[in-house]
Amino acid sequence: MSDYKEFDGIDSALTQLPREDLEKIRKIIYGKETHTIDVSDECKELAFKYNIELVTCGFNCKEEQLRSPKLIRVAAFQHKLVPFPTSTPIQEMKYALFKFANKAIRIAARGGANIFCFPELWNMPYAFCTREKNPWCEYAESAKTGPTTKMLQELAKIHNMVIISPILERDDIYNDTLWNTAVIIDNHGEYLGKYRKNHISRNAYLNESIYYTEGNAGHPVFETEFGNIAVCLGSYYPLSWLMFGLNGADIVFNPSAVAGETSEPLWGVAARNAAIANSYFTCAVNRAGTEVFVNDFTTGDGKPPHRESDYFFGSSYITAPNGTRSPGLSRTSNGLLIAEMDLNLCRQIKDQWGLQMTQRLEMYAKLLSKAAQVNFVPQRIRKSQD
Amino acid sequence: MSDYKEFDGIDSALTQLPREDLEKIRKIIYGKETHTIDVSDECKELAFKYNIELVTCGFNCKEEQLRSPKLIRVAAFQHKLVPFPTSTPIQEMKYALFKFANKAIRIAARGGANIFCFPELWNMPYAFCTREKNPWCEYAESAKTGPTTKMLQELAKIHNMVIISPILERDDIYNDTLWNTAVIIDNHGEYLGKYRKNHISRNAYLNESIYYTEGNAGHPVFETEFGNIAVCLGSYYPLSWLMFGLNGADIVFNPSAVAGETSEPLWGVAARNAAIANSYFTCAVNRAGTEVFVNDFTTGDGKPPHRESDYFFGSSYITAPNGTRSPGLSRTSNGLLIAEMDLNLCRQIKDQWGLQMTQRLEMYAKLLSKAAQVNFVPQRIRKSQD
Repeated sequence: MSDYKEFDGIDSALTQLPREDLEKIRKIIYGKETHTIDVSDECKELAFKYNIELVTCGFNCKEEQLRSPKLIRVAAFQHKLVPFPTSTPIQEMKYALFKFANKAIRIAARGGANIFCFPELWNMPYAFCTREKNPWCEYAESAKTGPTTKMLQELAKIHNMVIISPILERDDIYNDTLWNTAVIIDNHGEYLGKYRKNHISRNAYLNESIYYTEGNAGHPVFETEFGNIAVCLGSYYPLSWLMFGLNGADIVFNPSAVAGETSEPLWGVAARNAAIANSYFTCAVNRAGTEVFVNDFTTGDGKPPHRESDYFFGSSYITAPNGTRSPGLSRTSNGLLIAEMDLNLCRQIKDQWGLQMTQRLEMYAKLLSKAAQVNFVPQRIRKSQD
Repeated sequence: MSDYKEFDGIDSALTQLPREDLEKIRKIIYGKETHTIDVSDECKELAFKYNIELVTCGFNCKEEQLRSPKLIRVAAFQHKLVPFPTSTPIQEMKYALFKFANKAIRIAARGGANIFCFPELWNMPYAFCTREKNPWCEYAESAKTGPTTKMLQELAKIHNMVIISPILERDDIYNDTLWNTAVIIDNHGEYLGKYRKNHISRNAYLNESIYYTEGNAGHPVFETEFGNIAVCLGSYYPLSWLMFGLNGADIVFNPSAVAGETSEPLWGVAARNAAIANSYFTCAVNRAGTEVFVNDFTTGDGKPPHRESDYFFGSSYITAPNGTRSPGLSRTSNGLLIAEMDLNLCRQIKDQWGLQMTQRLEMYAKLLSKAAQVNFVPQRIRKSQD
């Protein structure tokens, strides 16, 4: 399987199956049928011109008697840093990425997108595998006044689009602290606020915890003209997803930078489960490609020192509150996934399933309070009990 | 797709793909490679004789220097009530199911199983779709002294096997209350204790909430000779899964009785996500087949009155703490899934990923305490904030 990195993904491979089997398999692994949506020819042509894969999809939703549909379109943008070498000077790299982002946002606008989401730390190499502080910390910017936010504010205004921009944040108020942050810009170009990653992984490959610490900005839900949205940078923490549900999110974006064989089988599961458990849409966005660094680094896994990151496997996808998911973007290329959804579906599923009413929050609040204590006694049964 | 109900499942359909693609797809949707395990010829012959599909699988795990492997085998048993009509007199139905269970347990024993798990409410029709109280409530038994427990205690002792038996419980202490309960019997035939379903769904098809109420037995973890085990009857409640992790489970069994097109796409997601999020094994066991009742009933979905249940889609499967999953049993037949696992993998994954150390339990305990109050104010951002 030497060409595994180049494998485009399961959607295209499955099309080799007999149509009848394919339909059944899709029902089981992807859920209810989705419909096709129209996007302008200009959108398609631009995507083709800039070599950005374009995947579109519409989620079905019943009409209601008292509420009008809240139809919106979400764009998930996944990109490779290649062809820009990681050694590109910072200003130059940012400028190149800004230019590319500009194109992607234009295509999304032509596709009718109302909300646009980048992957995690989209405007820099995912360089934490190197454990080098220099020059990577120099990529950090002010969430509110940094150049990336400024640039995107312009585009948000021009295209009447909410933009979610996950960056490495330099906290200009609190003593130069770094955070892994998502900036939310509204469709008038106003800076709406930020979310800071709450759970920082502690593993030998990612090394996140030596760059920044646990977020202190809570689990904000942003009320926009296109729905209540939130950002979750913590795919494997169901409590994190839960809080966005309790705070009233319609869509939770999950910008990521995940790579390699250990993470890939988890990718289709975490954000999808969150949509099911919390009756909201989730939009999981990943980067693609392999990034090559100048200096050798080790990854704590016995492999010899090397310069290549693990491969980021793309595969961005969107899930509806009933668990139905969109096709995925490719594993290997730049791509734009545009999905249309009626936000009314969230409440419809809550009415249908009632998970929010049967979750016994009060009981768990007490249980977690006990479990968080140092003298916690787990509920264990060693011998026969009634 | 008229034969959707008879579709065997994705595992067999995928084998039509070119081998190279199949391997890649399996890696992405199922995770790391598993290995084959040996079971006795007698096990295979008996399974063949009794027309029970036999699927086996071994999860890989590194050897440690200080701890010996804790190799155990788990058997998930899925069955159809057919050919016994739902109108079969209760004693007769139970006797028929006892006989069949006896066979399945014998096969599992010959396959080296240490723990055996039935689906939810295994010894009765899943009759709540009818909304009839009579005769279905008569199926309820004492968890500790009922005939099903007595019968299984004998088998557990003979086969040196822990048995998980989910039944409709008649509470013989507390005023004839009914519960949806899992009974745990240890490998010496001792009644070890019980777990009562904590989350009772409120939807128009299942009608669970008119038969029994929310469990009051907590989230017990049972310390057995074959590991710390628990039972979760609440697939879509991440908080429930979390508590079993906090209480120290190595394996959480998820006996189910789920049916139909709405639930099937969720089936591969919920228990698998729980294994990933909590670094334990999960074993999701479902019944199979369609059950036909004597009287017409409606299902609140506009369909005309009918007598057939939705189809239970089997597809039982097991997930390791690293997210790797076993093949599934068929969607349509009686089956036995025997998987070998080293329980050391749980701690290895905790050491590797550290999710249990980065989950910020104390923060969420406080957040949930607030969220459970009637005057809860969600964290919402309406206009620009710093």
